[in-house]
Amino acid sequence: MRGQIRAFVFDVFGTVVDWREGVAREFVASGLVPGADASLGLRFADAWRRRYAPSFMKVNRGERPFVKLDALHMENLLETLPEFGVDPSGLAPAQLERLNAAWRRLPPWPDSVEGLARLKTRYIIAPHSNGNLRLLLEMAKHGGLPWDAILGAEVVGAYKPTPHSYLRTAELLSLQPHEVCMTAAHNDDLQAARACGLRTAFIYRRTEYGPEQRTDLQPAADWDFVAESITDLASQAGCA
Amino acid sequence: MRGQIRAFVFDVFGTVVDWREGVAREFVASGLVPGADASLGLRFADAWRRRYAPSFMKVNRGERPFVKLDALHMENLLETLPEFGVDPSGLAPAQLERLNAAWRRLPPWPDSVEGLARLKTRYIIAPHSNGNLRLLLEMAKHGGLPWDAILGAEVVGAYKPTPHSYLRTAELLSLQPHEVCMTAAHNDDLQAARACGLRTAFIYRRTEYGPEQRTDLQPAADWDFVAESITDLASQAGCA
Repeated sequence: MRGQIRAFVFDVFGTVVDWREGVAREFVASGLVPGADASLGLRFADAWRRRYAPSFMKVNRGERPFVKLDALHMENLLETLPEFGVDPSGLAPAQLERLNAAWRRLPPWPDSVEGLARLKTRYIIAPHSNGNLRLLLEMAKHGGLPWDAILGAEVVGAYKPTPHSYLRTAELLSLQPHEVCMTAAHNDDLQAARACGLRTAFIYRRTEYGPEQRTDLQPAADWDFVAESITDLASQAGCA
Repeated sequence: MRGQIRAFVFDVFGTVVDWREGVAREFVASGLVPGADASLGLRFADAWRRRYAPSFMKVNRGERPFVKLDALHMENLLETLPEFGVDPSGLAPAQLERLNAAWRRLPPWPDSVEGLARLKTRYIIAPHSNGNLRLLLEMAKHGGLPWDAILGAEVVGAYKPTPHSYLRTAELLSLQPHEVCMTAAHNDDLQAARACGLRTAFIYRRTEYGPEQRTDLQPAADWDFVAESITDLASQAGCA
């Protein structure tokens, strides 16, 4: 089964990059809340991120047309700021856009760049993320992620976990679903990918949501790979 | 005008890679015509390529649904082989597929990899080619083309020179048309891009069609850049 894999496609937020630390740091550095400390930054990141799934699920349920994740992030930012005492109507558009672009500058986990580079020697590697193309492209330039191509929700016109998003990704790669391995730190993403016939790889990211994380601490099924890191996945997949 | 450019998108066949030499060599190496020399290889490449534009124009005119360029290349290959005395029905599918994949292994022009790498330090770079995603991706892996993303006809769902193909490319990059520079060795591609509001860069490729080339020997309009090579373009665009 594993031997037929030609491409590894990746969830990005949480699996390849550390969104929580990245957003927290940029919020503190923004100076929007004078004296904000790291702890407040993390609370801000959690509050912003909490609105993420509900916002794209409206698209998946057909309640609104497809919009880029950059746009959903901005809507969610405008809702989150008042919870932290910031009135967004008092900010310049450039200030808001700068903070919204924090998602384009998220730091890779320590193993991500090396792991991807090793996988790339024998496989196609691409993000299959809900991030829009420009977001993922800038993140790759910023963090040195060596993708072969930028795929994801915007390119396929649908957010995960719709079956179309996985099947269209395989079709764009001119591969059968079983030749593509979905790689994620999230069991629900892998469940949806397996239902479409893709192979699956689980990466442990036990602190994506901080030290109190309660979800995705263990693989929830017999995924094709279970790995401690992307470098560990590369080793298991035969990449020196 | 030039100062607003954020991305250079590239025609690929002829502008970034030498399709004629690449296809000719693979045809000779295929052994399909015993004793075939380089000259016959070049004639085969020309005959195969002659069917290229007519085949995708059928898609652009709505006479058939969108199909990948890999599939059009195969159809055209099956028509071209008999002209060279080869009956395709006598070949194994794998032989045909191997020759069809010659387009995935085309050699970059000598300046392409260095020029793209220099442009990448200050701009987004991506192919905007009629090649399908997998074709362009494998070509990049094979030739070391350091694209930030793989765009092109398949991703936007239309072949050049439809206006949609240029405008959707800018939209996927979250850029305005005037922030994107179409780069090509072909005046008609640049004409269509300019009509959509893109910036334009002409690269001289005086022997793309061999020493007898009659077309595109000169820029046909006042393109924003006129360059001897992609490295020359990188210099003109301020990339050390």
